[in-house]
Amino acid sequence: MSETLTDAALPSYVRDAWWSPDASAATSEVRDAATGELVARVSTEGLDLAGALEHARTVGQTSLGELTFHQRAVLLKRMALALTERKAELYELSSRTGATKQDSWVDIDGGIGVLFTYSSKGRREMPNAKVYVDGAVEQLSKDGTFLGRHVYTRLPGVAVQINAFNFPVWGSLEKFAPAFLAGVPTLVKPATPSGYLAVAMVRILVESGLLPAGSLQLVAGSVPGLFDELRLGDLVAFTGSASTAEQLRAHDSVQTGGVRFTSETDSINASVLGTDASAGTPEFDAYVKQLVVELTTKAGQKCTAIRRAIVPEASVDDVIAAVRERIAERVVVGDPRAEGVTMGPLASTEQRDEVLRQLAKLEAAGGERVIGEPGEPEVLRADGTRGTLPEGAFVVPTLLRFADADSPALHEVEAFGPVSSIVGYRSLAEAAELVARGGGSLVTSVATHDPEVAVALAGTVAAYNGRLLFLDRDDARTSTGHGSPLPNLVHGGPGRAGGGEELGGIRAVLHHMQRTAVQGSPEMLTALTGVWHAGASARPYAASGERHPFRKSLAELRIGDQVQSPARTVTLDDIETFAAFTGDTFYAHMDETSAAANPFFPGRVAHGYLLVSWAAGLFVDPEPGPVLANSGLENLRFVTPVSPGDEIRVELTAKQITPRETDEYGEVRWDAVLRNQRDELVASYDVLTLVAKEPAAA
Amino acid sequence: MSETLTDAALPSYVRDAWWSPDASAATSEVRDAATGELVARVSTEGLDLAGALEHARTVGQTSLGELTFHQRAVLLKRMALALTERKAELYELSSRTGATKQDSWVDIDGGIGVLFTYSSKGRREMPNAKVYVDGAVEQLSKDGTFLGRHVYTRLPGVAVQINAFNFPVWGSLEKFAPAFLAGVPTLVKPATPSGYLAVAMVRILVESGLLPAGSLQLVAGSVPGLFDELRLGDLVAFTGSASTAEQLRAHDSVQTGGVRFTSETDSINASVLGTDASAGTPEFDAYVKQLVVELTTKAGQKCTAIRRAIVPEASVDDVIAAVRERIAERVVVGDPRAEGVTMGPLASTEQRDEVLRQLAKLEAAGGERVIGEPGEPEVLRADGTRGTLPEGAFVVPTLLRFADADSPALHEVEAFGPVSSIVGYRSLAEAAELVARGGGSLVTSVATHDPEVAVALAGTVAAYNGRLLFLDRDDARTSTGHGSPLPNLVHGGPGRAGGGEELGGIRAVLHHMQRTAVQGSPEMLTALTGVWHAGASARPYAASGERHPFRKSLAELRIGDQVQSPARTVTLDDIETFAAFTGDTFYAHMDETSAAANPFFPGRVAHGYLLVSWAAGLFVDPEPGPVLANSGLENLRFVTPVSPGDEIRVELTAKQITPRETDEYGEVRWDAVLRNQRDELVASYDVLTLVAKEPAAA
Repeated sequence: MSETLTDAALPSYVRDAWWSPDASAATSEVRDAATGELVARVSTEGLDLAGALEHARTVGQTSLGELTFHQRAVLLKRMALALTERKAELYELSSRTGATKQDSWVDIDGGIGVLFTYSSKGRREMPNAKVYVDGAVEQLSKDGTFLGRHVYTRLPGVAVQINAFNFPVWGSLEKFAPAFLAGVPTLVKPATPSGYLAVAMVRILVESGLLPAGSLQLVAGSVPGLFDELRLGDLVAFTGSASTAEQLRAHDSVQTGGVRFTSETDSINASVLGTDASAGTPEFDAYVKQLVVELTTKAGQKCTAIRRAIVPEASVDDVIAAVRERIAERVVVGDPRAEGVTMGPLASTEQRDEVLRQLAKLEAAGGERVIGEPGEPEVLRADGTRGTLPEGAFVVPTLLRFADADSPALHEVEAFGPVSSIVGYRSLAEAAELVARGGGSLVTSVATHDPEVAVALAGTVAAYNGRLLFLDRDDARTSTGHGSPLPNLVHGGPGRAGGGEELGGIRAVLHHMQRTAVQGSPEMLTALTGVWHAGASARPYAASGERHPFRKSLAELRIGDQVQSPARTVTLDDIETFAAFTGDTFYAHMDETSAAANPFFPGRVAHGYLLVSWAAGLFVDPEPGPVLANSGLENLRFVTPVSPGDEIRVELTAKQITPRETDEYGEVRWDAVLRNQRDELVASYDVLTLVAKEPAAA
Repeated sequence: MSETLTDAALPSYVRDAWWSPDASAATSEVRDAATGELVARVSTEGLDLAGALEHARTVGQTSLGELTFHQRAVLLKRMALALTERKAELYELSSRTGATKQDSWVDIDGGIGVLFTYSSKGRREMPNAKVYVDGAVEQLSKDGTFLGRHVYTRLPGVAVQINAFNFPVWGSLEKFAPAFLAGVPTLVKPATPSGYLAVAMVRILVESGLLPAGSLQLVAGSVPGLFDELRLGDLVAFTGSASTAEQLRAHDSVQTGGVRFTSETDSINASVLGTDASAGTPEFDAYVKQLVVELTTKAGQKCTAIRRAIVPEASVDDVIAAVRERIAERVVVGDPRAEGVTMGPLASTEQRDEVLRQLAKLEAAGGERVIGEPGEPEVLRADGTRGTLPEGAFVVPTLLRFADADSPALHEVEAFGPVSSIVGYRSLAEAAELVARGGGSLVTSVATHDPEVAVALAGTVAAYNGRLLFLDRDDARTSTGHGSPLPNLVHGGPGRAGGGEELGGIRAVLHHMQRTAVQGSPEMLTALTGVWHAGASARPYAASGERHPFRKSLAELRIGDQVQSPARTVTLDDIETFAAFTGDTFYAHMDETSAAANPFFPGRVAHGYLLVSWAAGLFVDPEPGPVLANSGLENLRFVTPVSPGDEIRVELTAKQITPRETDEYGEVRWDAVLRNQRDELVASYDVLTLVAKEPAAA
């Protein structure tokens, strides 16, 4: 593939077909980060962007709208497998962006991992439905005829994803996966310097045949006028520089047109060495190791990289010495294709020049260069020789020491490369204040083994960060690292970090949906949510002449199917039998005087566990059938105590049915309500069961 | 109080003191809505706005930071009681804004109700702590040494609340309550035309002595330069016109400074009559009744009022006739102080003139006036006579009929008064499309008794609305109405409605906090969240020589206190005994062949309820003591089945302690883990107990 890249301009994938500009189109060139060779030409001249957006809003919305969350989740897993199978192609191309094998692993396997996680979370944490219910039922009238509930429904437009150059695969997939799961079609615009890798990834997805029509489009190149075409129901997720974010956010479509805009921008992230973590402690070692990793991974071109090492004044020299030693031992800068290289070039010579400009600003503001020689670096070339590669975008790992912690540049200027600053602090309060001076960050890490240090810092800095990582001897080996956003944790941060949120599991799916409060009768809420609400019509099986609900497979069971049990009287003898059998001789069950002295009980009462055990005996249909197992129980609350002589009966109603896409069974959630002979609520809970899809499987 | 209002300018409450402008300050005048009499003079000339903000960020943050969520919640209830006690003062002033008794009830009792709801929800749905944990633990390493969790911590700044003129009490309290509960100090800026009522409300709160220092400030009058003083950590919640929202949102502090900005703007809300709800049905009657209520309550000056009645073409005439009849029967326009008046004037003559301007636009665009005479209306005066009140801001209830559903003005022009439009639709799809043409609304209501109609409409319109209300014969009597935002439901909406969210119970509290992903060892996460995490250190009571955790009151119990039970063997006899006792003879427990044929079981297995009942017997300490009751159980999952001959043992660890502020006990959540003799996980769940605060109470 890499050979063909230069022959014609990089194609875009729009309206379910590959599109290329005319031969006459003006193109821009993309070059190999290490060698400067031409890799691709890029142009969108003549591309019908409005048509692509409309395709997403019509064809894409329709095809995704036919699928449930679980069905989309299954497709995500299959896409992950398709990419895994052909990932060697991506690794090969990735080295041209300056990425080492390790960098490529973060980008490619990391991106695939996002698909796996969303596939798994989509099926475990969302219903097999098209509407997501948020939070509990709200009783809006005393008699229960008027209820409120919150639901999320997908946005009716297109998810426009504008990505940064540093992680062309991960960056695309981490935005695509939640949008896809929500049911919102994606139009992705990769950054030009590494867009060819995103194109190769999309090509694999297209060729896998797994993409529903219109669900994913890619525009390779610039997108002039894009925002003029956006409207209410669309959303934009932007990753890149704060200044570009500012410019895009100012567009009318965002300011007044109702287009949702999220941005995740690089930030001046901090890493704090705790007061307890002096040289010789495992935390000190973990801190230094992490600092070097963050400085050199992806040549420091990470939004999440450590820009400010904030360490106790007494430890500044120790940290510098240890970092210097570790870099000398471990870091080999060069062409990623050369054996042994651990740090490649920046993405482009333009990036290199920009980093050097910002570096100069930092030095001018008082940053003393304590690690990293200036000037043209000598590197390991692809052929194994050492020397300069003037067409390559190389910058050596650089650490600047600031004597003045108040220098604004320290907290505001970012050199988006292998460049960090180190500064000393005198108190934890000062350390926290320095972190906050970053003006909002994606992540701050803290190396400490002292929970008090952790709590003291977190109390101030949490509100300034999207993520906090605490590193100590217990997790140093297993930590995924300061710089790694994870699909199950929120990625983003306030202020300088863009103010947005991505990832965080299902949270990011919901960012692609509208939360709406729904008010109505139990019957209407049942219809609108697919979840039975107390007060809605139910079908007691005996009264309706139907079979016991436990005799129905998922193919037959309907929400509202119900068991109304006979009553059973609890005797003192039952309580004593149960106590003797279980060993639960708690005084409230056994000792009349002490029980009566208890503020909640009139005297000896039945065990709660006796009640739910009996309830099962009252509602169960024991013969072999489609009900396979009781898998759990949720939200059990004991309300009215049951005294000897009281009766209990149970009402069990099918509440929610969740067939599994890849199994022969699914989960049925039953609403269980226990009442006594005075019709008082004794207990309520949800019973979870696994039930076969088809009668035959029983 | 009303007499003193005109003597001097309306005071502001800043830095915990009342402030008034100099006598020489230029003031603007506020007049009685019905009579035009001078009610108040307003000025902020010389007010130190920056000082007030800084007071909130320092003194306010500190005083609120000393309180837990529950302590703040208790204060909210006490404030609600203080306001209730003196609400007559507020009702009297309220009539000067043009509000009828019923309007004042919505504003004053509605506002007090928000405090009660937040007090209750804060204690029921939040921990008695300062950090709010969001979502489940994320396992980030296979060995459990590295975990992730999300926490919310309060924003470190000030909540600036800019309110609309229509609900001076409710509008202030609905923003103040969630901010206060979050621990973020408020600076409220009421709208000038009714600001004197907000001042009176704040005066009651101040005089109650319940406000922590710096937690609430009020600026009566304009706030030039306010946004220049805002910075990261502050947030603005704005209610008002879309154009003002646009202007404020464009400020640098919001665009790039990290200030959170939420807006809730009036919108072109719709109310749809279902295809099934023709004249003669209860839904038709409920629809008409609601339409008249929304047209006349607060003289139609509600962000949530119905602006577009979208009804089946065949029903347009019927609806108009029924609305006309009901208005003639029920609506009396006049001075709110006159007996029998059901609709007052608009808030000011400026508002009246603006409404008349917008009304003219709507008429010019094809809106045919079918209800409501133009010209100076005759009204009921305070003295009981009928006649005109030229200094009053009266507009009669007006309904415009649009023949052309495509008229842009119908969907875009708002006359913020007693003015609605009616238009016919031919299909449900068209009705849904018309709703969406509002460009994002706070609320749409639908009158239908047909769940299919409800589902069809909701599928399209939910994403364009912050709230949907379904009205039918089942809830017509108990419905709180199209126009009523409720504290437990989200209020806000996409696009034209401002794009923000307020209320929605705890959701609004979280809007005042930063969500942060926290990564670390179980020990660190335990320290940071106050919730015990599996893998963190625990104190088995026997091994540590301590007392059984059930013997400890809340004053003594610590998270991590643990019971490690001995093992107990389950026999076939036990299973049969349990089955006979409970009646639960499900085949998986009783029938070896059928159980073995089940995909999950090796053969007959113990009942899940037997296991949790035995576990209680294994962990309980039976003697009277501080543990008062088992109040519930959550998140029970059965993992490994237990066969006859297997052993089980339980580990019970104090996980979270929630003392109640106003009771002598609190809730303890215990982590329960059952394992078998092979150390496999059998079941896990949380046990909820009520435990006395002090040993003496035992």
